[in-house]
Amino acid sequence: MVASAFLPELWTEILVPVCAVVGIAFSLFQWFIVSRVRVSSDQGASSSSSGGSKNGYGDYLIEEEEGVNDQSVVAKCAEIQTAISEGPVMISATSFLFTEYRYVGVFMVIFAAIIFVFLGSVEGFSTENKPCTYDETKTCKPALATAAFSTIAFVLGAVTSVLSGFLGMKIATYANARTTLEARKGVGKAFIVAFRSGAVMGFLLAASGLLVLYVTINVFKIYYGDDWEGLFEAITGYGLGGSSMALFGRVGGGIYTKAADVGADLVGKIERNIPEDDPRNPAVIADNVGDNVGDIAGMGSDLFGSYAEASCAALVVASISSFGINHDFTAMCYPLLISSMGILVCLITTLFATDFFEIKAVKEIEPALKNQLIISTVIMTVGIAIVSYVGLPSSFTIFNFGTQKVVQNWQLFLCVCVGLWAGLIIGFVTEYYTSNAYRTGAATNVIFGLALGYKSVIIPIFAIAVSIFVSFSFAAMYGVAVAALGMLSTIATGLAIDAYGPISDNAGGIAEMAGMSHRIRERTDALDAAGNTTAAIGKGFAIGSAALVSLALFGAFVSRAGVHTVDVLTPKVIIGLLVGAMLPYWFSAMTMKSVGSAALKMVEEVRRQFNTIPGLMEGTAKPDYATCVKISTDASIKEMIPPGCLVMLTPLIVGFFFGVETLSGVLAGSLVSGVQIAISASNTGGAWDNAKKYIEAGVSEHAKSLGPKGSEPHKAAVIGDTIGDPLKDTSGPSLNILIKLMAVESLVFAPFFATHGGILFKYL
Amino acid sequence: MVASAFLPELWTEILVPVCAVVGIAFSLFQWFIVSRVRVSSDQGASSSSSGGSKNGYGDYLIEEEEGVNDQSVVAKCAEIQTAISEGPVMISATSFLFTEYRYVGVFMVIFAAIIFVFLGSVEGFSTENKPCTYDETKTCKPALATAAFSTIAFVLGAVTSVLSGFLGMKIATYANARTTLEARKGVGKAFIVAFRSGAVMGFLLAASGLLVLYVTINVFKIYYGDDWEGLFEAITGYGLGGSSMALFGRVGGGIYTKAADVGADLVGKIERNIPEDDPRNPAVIADNVGDNVGDIAGMGSDLFGSYAEASCAALVVASISSFGINHDFTAMCYPLLISSMGILVCLITTLFATDFFEIKAVKEIEPALKNQLIISTVIMTVGIAIVSYVGLPSSFTIFNFGTQKVVQNWQLFLCVCVGLWAGLIIGFVTEYYTSNAYRTGAATNVIFGLALGYKSVIIPIFAIAVSIFVSFSFAAMYGVAVAALGMLSTIATGLAIDAYGPISDNAGGIAEMAGMSHRIRERTDALDAAGNTTAAIGKGFAIGSAALVSLALFGAFVSRAGVHTVDVLTPKVIIGLLVGAMLPYWFSAMTMKSVGSAALKMVEEVRRQFNTIPGLMEGTAKPDYATCVKISTDASIKEMIPPGCLVMLTPLIVGFFFGVETLSGVLAGSLVSGVQIAISASNTGGAWDNAKKYIEAGVSEHAKSLGPKGSEPHKAAVIGDTIGDPLKDTSGPSLNILIKLMAVESLVFAPFFATHGGILFKYL
Repeated sequence: MVASAFLPELWTEILVPVCAVVGIAFSLFQWFIVSRVRVSSDQGASSSSSGGSKNGYGDYLIEEEEGVNDQSVVAKCAEIQTAISEGPVMISATSFLFTEYRYVGVFMVIFAAIIFVFLGSVEGFSTENKPCTYDETKTCKPALATAAFSTIAFVLGAVTSVLSGFLGMKIATYANARTTLEARKGVGKAFIVAFRSGAVMGFLLAASGLLVLYVTINVFKIYYGDDWEGLFEAITGYGLGGSSMALFGRVGGGIYTKAADVGADLVGKIERNIPEDDPRNPAVIADNVGDNVGDIAGMGSDLFGSYAEASCAALVVASISSFGINHDFTAMCYPLLISSMGILVCLITTLFATDFFEIKAVKEIEPALKNQLIISTVIMTVGIAIVSYVGLPSSFTIFNFGTQKVVQNWQLFLCVCVGLWAGLIIGFVTEYYTSNAYRTGAATNVIFGLALGYKSVIIPIFAIAVSIFVSFSFAAMYGVAVAALGMLSTIATGLAIDAYGPISDNAGGIAEMAGMSHRIRERTDALDAAGNTTAAIGKGFAIGSAALVSLALFGAFVSRAGVHTVDVLTPKVIIGLLVGAMLPYWFSAMTMKSVGSAALKMVEEVRRQFNTIPGLMEGTAKPDYATCVKISTDASIKEMIPPGCLVMLTPLIVGFFFGVETLSGVLAGSLVSGVQIAISASNTGGAWDNAKKYIEAGVSEHAKSLGPKGSEPHKAAVIGDTIGDPLKDTSGPSLNILIKLMAVESLVFAPFFATHGGILFKYL
Repeated sequence: MVASAFLPELWTEILVPVCAVVGIAFSLFQWFIVSRVRVSSDQGASSSSSGGSKNGYGDYLIEEEEGVNDQSVVAKCAEIQTAISEGPVMISATSFLFTEYRYVGVFMVIFAAIIFVFLGSVEGFSTENKPCTYDETKTCKPALATAAFSTIAFVLGAVTSVLSGFLGMKIATYANARTTLEARKGVGKAFIVAFRSGAVMGFLLAASGLLVLYVTINVFKIYYGDDWEGLFEAITGYGLGGSSMALFGRVGGGIYTKAADVGADLVGKIERNIPEDDPRNPAVIADNVGDNVGDIAGMGSDLFGSYAEASCAALVVASISSFGINHDFTAMCYPLLISSMGILVCLITTLFATDFFEIKAVKEIEPALKNQLIISTVIMTVGIAIVSYVGLPSSFTIFNFGTQKVVQNWQLFLCVCVGLWAGLIIGFVTEYYTSNAYRTGAATNVIFGLALGYKSVIIPIFAIAVSIFVSFSFAAMYGVAVAALGMLSTIATGLAIDAYGPISDNAGGIAEMAGMSHRIRERTDALDAAGNTTAAIGKGFAIGSAALVSLALFGAFVSRAGVHTVDVLTPKVIIGLLVGAMLPYWFSAMTMKSVGSAALKMVEEVRRQFNTIPGLMEGTAKPDYATCVKISTDASIKEMIPPGCLVMLTPLIVGFFFGVETLSGVLAGSLVSGVQIAISASNTGGAWDNAKKYIEAGVSEHAKSLGPKGSEPHKAAVIGDTIGDPLKDTSGPSLNILIKLMAVESLVFAPFFATHGGILFKYL
């Protein structure tokens, strides 16, 4: 008889929601602090009366010495922020997201119906209970119930994902202008506003994801009772919902933002020689909106999806392991306990950036952000040890493709740790490669950038391989799932840092557009530069965790589909592997082409406006921002459908026509191929971006010799940056979702494929 | 009891070498015809006296009407040809190849020793016979014998490969100037010289590969007698030798040619605005030499390697199938009979291009080349049917990872056919994607090119997947091997077309350098354009066959290593798969960076010469060609070592430390990932190249609006072309060899890994 976990069930039932609520409260508190920076014309007066607080809200503005009319600048900032966030219909980020969600909503309804019908058909829509799969002495709920509850979980996951993205975007646009205004008081003040705003999003997302999952499990349990197998199978719908919304967020948002960005840069920077974010550029608002919908809403949904999927993969495997068989609820909730602990750890970590230390100079920003990751990882290691000690029995068994494998609690501790630390390594390697310098000439810069992206794959892949080997050897697919959760356990901090980047980027944009002085722009540029570096780290995390999550989901899928071996030495598997490895290329081809076409349209429109609107170049006439926004919106809505269909339909088609073995091959192939392209695409793009920034910043002698803006090397670097845009912000990050989503979809539909799949081979 | 093949053994023993000798004779005959174009100053006189022959050698030169001094042009051509082919030390292609072969020779000796020691150690260097693995009632030769004969076969394969490459290069340089001179008589004359020269190489390579393999088998049989298992295991060394030389040829040659090409283009075309192949450009000779060593010698070795490996994979599987067990020599030689038939079919096909029809206009060139592929494929289908009918018993068994599978002769016919036709489909799809047009702007051109390359992967992968599924389902890994042989059966025609491209390219270069009139250059450009299209087809063939060959070798490896399943659901395999999928990226990173660095050095040198040599730009001073050649030579020799080590050491390290399961994963991973990158890299580069050519040719209204040379769109297109150069001619084609070579090396060392491998897991 296997022992139970040390932590009583009641404590688990209390601790998990309490941690989630603490996370949400902390998030709201951060928001409250950010909101104290007033974006209205009377701000100058009110802030001086509340001076003296530690983080300096209300300090006298050092900007005033430069004689800029403070009131008009604040008013201008307020106006731009409103345009980005709330503005007239078809211009704002909000309106874009509503348009996107309307289309996505239609998809959601159709797909929910598919889930219900396909899963319900497994037992011919029978409403009778049946003997359980893994313990035939017990009765389990009918497949129809799983169909219904999976559908509900799917909708819940989708809605949570959409809300995460939407709220993240709201917070980001809310923070943009405030960061700009605080930059007048110094770089430290601006940093804290941007970072706190990022934290709002990070904690809100991590905590609400956990809370919704926890509540769903407990509500479903009322119906399912002792049938945990059925319960946690139904829960997998949550991961599918979260991830399918993330797909549209990433792809749609990615196309939107990069069409605007590429279009704005190609005409503005290269042809017209005007600075980035110049208000004369008609695509500038679309670019700013794009940063919010692509980098913030898209990334929020993406990481939420990873988190939800990793939890589902762990839970579904646990339900057929000794945790589930013995009904040890605390041990069953081990994945949720890890995430709860993660929220507390990230909370402490955040204080290091916002309260324990203060940023005084530009050069302290990047270390402060990197320290966040190191601190959270170190503390979390202790946290995992505690959770593993109190939340797990000292010994238990884990389902391993048909057999049960005995595992010790310290082994599971190591599994989570290896994931956590692999994430840190991947993050820092990514940062190292993308911080590389510029190489002479447009073509050679591109060649070196491609080579660099390819090279940057090596260490992350070894880190992932070691994580997989350790966790897989110790605890089969459950080990891989908790390793993924380990990597994602510091998600609140990771997201805070990630969101900080686009917030700073847009703060700079607003400073430029509001006509603030060069010094302010320099400060926001410094914030942005650090944000770029850490964004690379964040992307590394996202890809690394996606690889582990995808493998865990794959393992859960084969377990649920009753597959015991996926033998490469069979024709069905090898062709699946080959075609699966091709899918990321197909997908990237679609997204890259979409960005290219949309960018060309944008280029034409921007050129047209410069040529036909008199006084635009001189700054006396206003550009037609709305048309550019419309081009991005239309392109992203229209162009996200084909790649979306590719990802969503492939598992259904392969599973239905070719069966679970070929589908297993496809999943494994797309995983091992997709992760490489995702890493190299992100890093190639990041390196080009930083090469351009390196010249623009002109800090070193070498950089000065290449500059200034508008020089031949700078133009070459801008070409590189532009090529990298769709790689690093559209196709690269979307590939994360491709590999995860196909796996989670296969997992949800596993019983259907196992029953009705492979008809082509059956009748041939 | 299984029946024997219809064709008696004696007939097989006669037919195979006779076909090989016919192929060699045909090749020499073509060479004789080409050699009748005289490259010496009295050519004008002698040709007029021998007028009237069908292919017009000796026709009056239409060039004369333009008043160019004929004698001096011929003398100039002769001089340039000599420079490229024989020139002073360190300038010629010959001298480069000798330098390369010296380094490679050292490697060959070391690696031969490794093979002997590693394979000999399997049974502790015992000289005693042992019971056979697959039939324990019989005695087989000791592992030491296999070690010795494998080493000999390795050396033979390496030498044959080197000779193939070397002779190909010799023929190509021999043909360059002759094609230029014939272009004065019309495009049809020039086409025939270029095509015949290509055919010399194609037939020589196909026939000598077959002959050496056949002789080796028969000589080894004297020692091995009835032990066919040992005999054909030893023969696998032939494939390894062929392919490892191809690696150095492709990588070294690829770096050489692209460093020169990129360097020449970046300074010459973009900075100095002088035409391609302009004799004032100091890198022009290096570029021309590079075309010969990279595209001709490298590709010759590559396809020879594929052919040798596919034959070895088929033979080794056949030796443990009923063919080998029953000692049915004709059936055993089925792969050789296919190749023999291929030579005859290609011989007939060639006559369609050279004798049955005559090219009269530029627009007929491309259809003529494409028809070659279609004609050879159609006739070969009949040829395969004949060989399958007379060379195979009606029913037999094939080894299928531990079991024997019953196969009918018509099934094997279908296996070969599916490979043959898949090759044709892949070729034409490749051609379709690379013939696409230019998209506006440097950055968008690059984005669209990347998207196009990714997209071009889809259909070839499906074609390969179908081939694998059909051939694997019918006849396990033997089926895959013969499918690969089917694709390679028309290798003589394929190589003729492939070699035709660089020959025409260099003919154009010589015309430019010799200062011949614009009309001549237009003709050679037309020849070259058709060559580019068909080169894309050739590359598609090379990659497609590499994928099949690699899988067949992989199958032979697992068979020989005694592995029965390669289960993705084990940690050892999945990490192998992941790391294997990463290797092509690592490899590409190395080769791309090498080309980039070497190109930068070349750019500096070319710039230096333009800046410091007075009168160079005006054409009054001669550039220092030799220094540029030295840069390319040094770079290629130095830079081919790291990627070479990566490919050669990976199987040894993985097999020795991690064992055959992880190695199986690595092979499968690198196969499914590498084939995608190879296809997309080749086609992206090809598309950019053709976009540039599209503008330069200026045939359509659209193209004219983008041109002329030196315009902004043209410069953007040149940037794209330059980026594509290392992709399509260095890293892309080298990846073919990566996936094949790792597989064949694993196959050769399989007994060693099975006995001594996986020490890390054994002692951990």
